[in-house]
Amino acid sequence: MNAEIISVGTELLLGNIVNTNAQFLSRELASLGISVLRQSTIGDNPARLADWVNEAKSRADLLVFTGGLGPTADDLTKETVAACYGDTLAFDETEWARIEGYFARMGRTPTANNRKQAMVPVHGEKIINAHGTAPGVWFREGEKQAVLMPGVPREMTAMWLESVRPRLAGAQDSALVSTTLRIVGGESSIEAAVAPLLENENPTAAIYCKTGECEIRITARAQSEAAGRAMNEAYAEKFRAILGDAVYDADVPGAAWTLIRLLKERHLTVATAESCTGGLIAAQLTEVPGASEVFGFGYVTYWETAKTKLLGVDASVIEAYDVVSAPVAAQMALGAKLASGADIAVGITGLAGPDGGDAARPVGTVYLAVAMEKTVWVQRLSFANTGRQEIRLRAARAALEMLRRAVLGLAMPGSALGAAQVKKADFTAL
Amino acid sequence: MNAEIISVGTELLLGNIVNTNAQFLSRELASLGISVLRQSTIGDNPARLADWVNEAKSRADLLVFTGGLGPTADDLTKETVAACYGDTLAFDETEWARIEGYFARMGRTPTANNRKQAMVPVHGEKIINAHGTAPGVWFREGEKQAVLMPGVPREMTAMWLESVRPRLAGAQDSALVSTTLRIVGGESSIEAAVAPLLENENPTAAIYCKTGECEIRITARAQSEAAGRAMNEAYAEKFRAILGDAVYDADVPGAAWTLIRLLKERHLTVATAESCTGGLIAAQLTEVPGASEVFGFGYVTYWETAKTKLLGVDASVIEAYDVVSAPVAAQMALGAKLASGADIAVGITGLAGPDGGDAARPVGTVYLAVAMEKTVWVQRLSFANTGRQEIRLRAARAALEMLRRAVLGLAMPGSALGAAQVKKADFTAL
Repeated sequence: MNAEIISVGTELLLGNIVNTNAQFLSRELASLGISVLRQSTIGDNPARLADWVNEAKSRADLLVFTGGLGPTADDLTKETVAACYGDTLAFDETEWARIEGYFARMGRTPTANNRKQAMVPVHGEKIINAHGTAPGVWFREGEKQAVLMPGVPREMTAMWLESVRPRLAGAQDSALVSTTLRIVGGESSIEAAVAPLLENENPTAAIYCKTGECEIRITARAQSEAAGRAMNEAYAEKFRAILGDAVYDADVPGAAWTLIRLLKERHLTVATAESCTGGLIAAQLTEVPGASEVFGFGYVTYWETAKTKLLGVDASVIEAYDVVSAPVAAQMALGAKLASGADIAVGITGLAGPDGGDAARPVGTVYLAVAMEKTVWVQRLSFANTGRQEIRLRAARAALEMLRRAVLGLAMPGSALGAAQVKKADFTAL
Repeated sequence: MNAEIISVGTELLLGNIVNTNAQFLSRELASLGISVLRQSTIGDNPARLADWVNEAKSRADLLVFTGGLGPTADDLTKETVAACYGDTLAFDETEWARIEGYFARMGRTPTANNRKQAMVPVHGEKIINAHGTAPGVWFREGEKQAVLMPGVPREMTAMWLESVRPRLAGAQDSALVSTTLRIVGGESSIEAAVAPLLENENPTAAIYCKTGECEIRITARAQSEAAGRAMNEAYAEKFRAILGDAVYDADVPGAAWTLIRLLKERHLTVATAESCTGGLIAAQLTEVPGASEVFGFGYVTYWETAKTKLLGVDASVIEAYDVVSAPVAAQMALGAKLASGADIAVGITGLAGPDGGDAARPVGTVYLAVAMEKTVWVQRLSFANTGRQEIRLRAARAALEMLRRAVLGLAMPGSALGAAQVKKADFTAL
């Protein structure tokens, strides 16, 4: 089966919003084994819409529309597509009652225009919208199908997951099962290392890399869910054999989720002391539900006085080594651990730019430390100057990785210092 | 003049990446007064590519391509488009030397495949890529034009801004000038209130709303830059007349930028005390270059012991009123102000979910306080339960707005308490 995705909306053509729907649906269709031939974006009321739809219909088994279900009179998408699939629309009293109820819950009254949204196919089906006013519609003509969903991403994704995807999946005679490996490191070297594994037929595997992180999505087609899972697990082992402990988890939204889970499992608590990242690490940790079980104290110490006052960093250490230095990162981490009583703490200081920096410490220089029971690990990171926020995000990502390694007892990057020495400001070991 | 945007790339059809290029180019073209008729995404090596290009060429004056300039042998985009515009490609020694130099700087050696990237139009022009290997190309046939740029967003945007946009703008006989108003509040009521102003011919105005915030982009076509600016300013006044002080700034990336600027202008400093937002407010403030001039201390107090220890919140107040309450938010804000010595401080405590909450305090309940010299303002916010991270982002956005109002001396939401009373835990005024 193959498909085309058609997004309807002037706001997309004007560039007012980015089309995340097309990406979401492309991934979803791929995971169902349905090839996407083309994505198109057209205006709300395009001339020649019928020609366009008929042409796409001639190429693809399934057309997936988002948007164009609005209440305004000049929005003719639903009517036009209906005609292309030999269908017509009729007013649906039940749907109208649902729309009126939706408005009532919002404390509003529907306008006459909204009645248009209660028009549903005579031969095809309506698709319930549990999260908004416009119902979706499903047209069929022989083997050719068209699905129209709302353009609002929240309504569209809910309708897709609740109604459309299950029906498309059910129409397939086998189960599709996916798993997503998460990998620390965003370099093209990772992509190159696993390239041969990405050419497989079943399970398929695709890689996607972004700032400091890659994900590999493995999808098996099998007779049963259990068989698909087993195939994926066996194939995942091939990636793990190449990438080692850089594969940090599977089927989680990101590194903070893994870290919070590991801390919970080991009954450990963590504290953060942030300068250049300015609260990003704490914000990422607390995005995870239940983070409060393992995280209680975060210090954002942007000024030197904040570092000395809240974390007990020695002013003389700042003076002697610079505020962006290994000794200061080490004292920040240890200070946060002692002040909070946490089992483990991270300290980070660096130059995110855009100004400042010199030959010894250019913008992108970051010192990162993790304090444990008896040892403080500290490393220097040198990020390319790709912008203030990207440096901060990369630094936060590196901090989560260093914490993961510490919690798991994996080999640590950088230098080890005795906690007692850090406290006494004895940095001869560096 | 009208245009179509054509994105080439299998990674887009698979949904591995979101197509931000199409949004960027749509906005840019709109700001040049060039209408975008359609956006399309096709695979790297599509059958019938020539048909597709000829069809789009018959509709649009300008085709803007991104992607498809890669070194692999099966990538035929450049050759195909050349033929459609009556052009051919030839190997360019200068360009090849530049590509070799680029690789050398990265410590790499180009492969034979990369020679393909040094093929440039015989009749058309190459466009220098200062940020990557593949040069862009520009084809012309009569009034019809096609521009091909790399797919990597960083390379594409640089090439657009440095080479393509100036040339397209120069071809117009008038100046296009844009300004973007930023508005706090993301409700559809804002859109409804200004709807009549969005129908104007010159300047044009478009609105885009997202979580807790809208932006209105005003674009004038005029004989000169100065005349365009004056037209925009006059038209912006019409929006300000309707929206009042909800229009918080113009031509800034977001609310944190405005707040940091206002604090600098008034020589004021700010501190943050965050529970439910967990560092998000601090992270947003420190995203702004130069934030360190006005922000030095941030407290992430996720546990009650952190609130009492770092901010001096009374354990008895937590006990009496609940940790998610107006008194606790007030004591957090005042405690942060006193502990840091800042001129103004914000305190925030709430339930971001997904679990917890009851009838009195459902998920989405947030108490927000701002402590000033003699007064602590505190308000209760009730967000819909649209997900943990969205509640956190809305709460952080509300905090930045409350701080802005405090700094500007605008009318404050919520209740006013005397700082001395808050310190003494006397909340009879609430």
